[in-house]
Formats: sequence, C-alpha cells, structure tokens
Amino acid sequence: MTQMALQDHYPDDLSHCYGCGRLNDDGLRIKSFWEGDEAVCHFRPRLYHTGPPGYVYGGLIASLVDCHSTATASGAAYQRDGREPGTEPVPRYVTASLHVDFRKPTPVDAVLEVRARVTEMSGRKMIVTSTLSVDGVVCAEGVVVAVEMPETMREATAPQA
Amino acid sequence: MTQMALQDHYPDDLSHCYGCGRLNDDGLRIKSFWEGDEAVCHFRPRLYHTGPPGYVYGGLIASLVDCHSTATASGAAYQRDGREPGTEPVPRYVTASLHVDFRKPTPVDAVLEVRARVTEMSGRKMIVTSTLSVDGVVCAEGVVVAVEMPETMREATAPQA
Repeated sequence: MTQMALQDHYPDDLSHCYGCGRLNDDGLRIKSFWEGDEAVCHFRPRLYHTGPPGYVYGGLIASLVDCHSTATASGAAYQRDGREPGTEPVPRYVTASLHVDFRKPTPVDAVLEVRARVTEMSGRKMIVTSTLSVDGVVCAEGVVVAVEMPETMREATAPQA
Repeated sequence: MTQMALQDHYPDDLSHCYGCGRLNDDGLRIKSFWEGDEAVCHFRPRLYHTGPPGYVYGGLIASLVDCHSTATASGAAYQRDGREPGTEPVPRYVTASLHVDFRKPTPVDAVLEVRARVTEMSGRKMIVTSTLSVDGVVCAEGVVVAVEMPETMREATAPQA
C-alpha cells in the first residue's frame, strides 16, 4: 500500500491551496510524508521556476517550506494524539510566521528534498524547523510558526476587498 | 512618460525570474516602482493563488515580499549612488534571508499593495522591511536581508544535480 501524503487527508474544502491542495489543478501539489518523527517532501521544480539563471527563485523555496511545515505540524499533531494520519478530525495548521535562510543557490534542474520536524509545541502553536537540500547539500533552512487553523477560517468566505 | 519598473531595468540574462522577470512568460511579473525613498508594488492574485478558502496562499505573499524587496534594494542602491534607475551598472540583489509575519488572512480577490524601504545598509548588504496591505489594512509584514549578487552568479550556469 502506498502511504498517502499528509495533505491528501485534508478535507475537500481545505484542499485548494495553490501550494499543496490536491484539488488545485493549477497548483504545485506539494506532498509531505510522515517518517518517524519528521516529514519529508520531494519536489522537482519546473524549469520556469528559475530565479537567477539555473537556480530556483526564492518564492518557490518559501512555498515549499511553508506548505511542508504546516503539513508537518498536522503529522506531529496526529502523533501527539496517538492517532493514525487520516483519522478525524484532521488537524490543520496555518502559518503565523515564516523564516527562510538561503544558504546556497538551489539548482532548478534537480529534486529538492525538504525535511521538517516540530521542535516546540505549546497549546495551539508549533515551531517547525526544516532543511531544503539537493543531493544531501543543504541549500536553505526554514523556521515556521504554525498555529491550529481557527474555526472561522475553516468555514469563512473571505471578505471581498 | 510611464515610469519603468525597477525589474524592467535588470539585464536580459537576469530577467527570467519566475517572480519578477519580464522575460519569464509563465511567471508572476511582479513589478516594483520607486517612490521617494521606498518602492511600491501592486499585484492582483489569480483566483487559483488561494490558500484557505478565499485567501491567498502564503507562498505568494513570500514571493511578493522577496522579489519586491530585492528590487527595493536595487532602487535604494541607485539612490545611494546618486544615479537614475536604469543607468549602468544595474545593481542586482539576492536574498540571504526572508522573514514574513502573517498578521491577517489576505483576501485573494483583491489588489495587494506591498511597500518596502531599506532600513539598514552596510557594504554589500541591505535590510529591507515591508508591509503587504489590502485597502490600507496590513495583512503581512516582511524583513529581507538582501546582498549584492555575486559576479559568479551573474555569469554562472548552475551545476546539474
């Protein structure tokens, strides 16, 4: 049996994220898999995801760190609660803050590996640290503060600006 | 005469960025305009740039903060040197670190305004702080550490991974 990605357990109405929603046909479809006490994501950029020639643009790296980290928070919440991923209710997190240190240029024609783990939990909040690497070389490091998605956001329609 | 965006002064071989390159047909084409001592960017997301229902996904906000901040660094370098934007050599910056605080959910069906200014300069490094707002309401705040693009990156072809 193939393991499902953490994002593939998200309820339908929360599965349209451009970064990681399985129901967003235009999106990146970032997928995160739980492994022991961390989550791993592999992603091959399209060549048009370039920044400087031959390297990935920063916004894609930020997107990977962001969506992978909130998925990691979801996986860690399952583990904390002693539940199997996919059981109800599905823990869903949003990003309060995102920090990325770009250590080296990240080649665009490569498989990027993002690994993340929760390094601090308190109440509705988790701190998720991550590395993005190519062939074992760390190109970026991330820290995300993730908070449980408020009920209002689960149900709301955004105000029209 | 219409003012040109800071990114539209970048040399051709550095104009393929998915975030802000004028030569990337698939990209976001983020445009930043110099105003006094700051730079401003207006961006209307596509509806598929959603995160939670009705709101922008975090990676787009990070992309806007990232590309707009390095453009702001470029504009500030022109100003520091007493030169008009577009004169040679074009100052080009890359992101060493990116921090975004998400203050409120950002509606996807809206024009986002990003304003950024350089709050610290030393040698090849600038610190750029920014706000992203909708109708005057700040939805996110950014801090980018931008460094002058190394010559090697201006010329290099990325290693194949």
